[in-house]
Amino acid sequence: MDIMFNLNAYLVSKREKINSALDKILGDFPGASRLENAMRYSLMGDGKRLRPVLCIAAAEAVGGRATDVLPAACAFEMIHTYSLIHDDLPAMDDDDLRRGKPTCHVAFDEATAILAGDALLTLAFQTLSSADGCCIKNQASKWLGVVHKISFAAGYKGLIEGQMRDIAFEGTRLSLNELEAMHSLKTGALIEAAICSGAILADGSYEQVEQLEIYAKNIGLAFQVADDILNVEGNPSIMGKAAGTDKTRKKSTYPSILGIEKSKIFAERLVNNALQALEGFDNRSDPLRAIAGYVIKRKR
Amino acid sequence: MDIMFNLNAYLVSKREKINSALDKILGDFPGASRLENAMRYSLMGDGKRLRPVLCIAAAEAVGGRATDVLPAACAFEMIHTYSLIHDDLPAMDDDDLRRGKPTCHVAFDEATAILAGDALLTLAFQTLSSADGCCIKNQASKWLGVVHKISFAAGYKGLIEGQMRDIAFEGTRLSLNELEAMHSLKTGALIEAAICSGAILADGSYEQVEQLEIYAKNIGLAFQVADDILNVEGNPSIMGKAAGTDKTRKKSTYPSILGIEKSKIFAERLVNNALQALEGFDNRSDPLRAIAGYVIKRKR
Repeated sequence: MDIMFNLNAYLVSKREKINSALDKILGDFPGASRLENAMRYSLMGDGKRLRPVLCIAAAEAVGGRATDVLPAACAFEMIHTYSLIHDDLPAMDDDDLRRGKPTCHVAFDEATAILAGDALLTLAFQTLSSADGCCIKNQASKWLGVVHKISFAAGYKGLIEGQMRDIAFEGTRLSLNELEAMHSLKTGALIEAAICSGAILADGSYEQVEQLEIYAKNIGLAFQVADDILNVEGNPSIMGKAAGTDKTRKKSTYPSILGIEKSKIFAERLVNNALQALEGFDNRSDPLRAIAGYVIKRKR
Repeated sequence: MDIMFNLNAYLVSKREKINSALDKILGDFPGASRLENAMRYSLMGDGKRLRPVLCIAAAEAVGGRATDVLPAACAFEMIHTYSLIHDDLPAMDDDDLRRGKPTCHVAFDEATAILAGDALLTLAFQTLSSADGCCIKNQASKWLGVVHKISFAAGYKGLIEGQMRDIAFEGTRLSLNELEAMHSLKTGALIEAAICSGAILADGSYEQVEQLEIYAKNIGLAFQVADDILNVEGNPSIMGKAAGTDKTRKKSTYPSILGIEKSKIFAERLVNNALQALEGFDNRSDPLRAIAGYVIKRKR
């Protein structure tokens, strides 16, 4: 990896691009409805924008540009945000704090939060299908393929089933396999879809997409292991959400099964696997390499 | 209209086709997850299947076949069902009975109902993007266009905003204009999208789609006026849901503003407008003509 690569500057510049695209899609205007205000409140929060950044970085790794995949990048952030709004609801995790501010149902109300989540999920598909490039006929089948990939990853055999299990498993001691299967549904599927969609839309080769899928599987899981560690060791004021909640809720986590030290070693092994998958790529994949390290070193 | 046209036989045959397609998409198998069971429970309920039938009838009216548009027809029923599951939640209308059986959150639990709704919405887009016809490149842009039309109609400037207003307006006396605007968002937008998508996917001409849009706007509103009348005069055991609920909730309705008799006259005028819009169509639009009448004569 080019040791001069400045991940922080990269993240700042991509987040800016993503935030400005999201802002443009969900305009801020006088007379916005309560629903629009709630959508905006949650979407424009101080998020890491990990999924859209990964989507863009994957596109760049195969030689594409951020602008080629921006509608997809935005769609991933909308779907991620909707899933957080719904997960935070009283009927689910009942969380009050998210991204450093009151959760959507606390700031607005429960009905509005449910509908704002629904609306962000729907807007993701509206965004994917109104991508500028889609007017060109031979681009449409690519974008339709991405609609399919995302809806599968976010659906009842992906993200949503992951959340079902997360709730069902509360208070149960899981095996490592059960824990990994749950995370690969709840977090892994969408991260993988973000990376593969970025590469597909930027016309990556079959082999490139396949290698990026391996990268994605490993950093997706590493991300979750790191999240579990942060829940034990993290600083709530930096994270923008409460710490120690897994223990209170008696959730099985990597630290609770493996212990903290072995969890850290496991996360590092996953990151190394991810880096190995990038071996055939040139320096345009440096952002992906740097993000792999960031995933386990982040403080929030 | 061909007076020999048998609407009942038509509805039975189309519903059978739709139910079997839905059944195939959301397979029933031993070991299905709780989430899949909840999705199936609500989706396979005894619904009228109005939106998918309209989608198919519109395709037929312009010379297409049901099979050409079946994935879209199914998607409309999934989106309609998801919206019912979420509307019935305790945080919203708090209804216990739907399609003649306990609502999803009563039969399962609140978290499962929220997620089953999310999953049906997501599955709608998965279905639209996995349509067999999409493999053919010049079909993809048509299907992507339908993804866009549906996501707009179901989104924060359509169905979801309609539900926001429905909740916000409870206990408020509305003007006719406010009531109509609310219904055109909450019910009209999706019915219109179902009809137009059917015609577009079956390669209807621009003029045909335009006329069908007028038809759709009128029967969409007529449907709602009839629903309001049923809520006053209907038989709960035939409707499969409670009657008199609008009055209890102090909702503004057509009967509460216009009175029952004037509401009936208004509904008939809308149906006549809808029939007029079909004047340039041949007898392949007889199902649409018959459905226009059915919309205000139905008992559930």
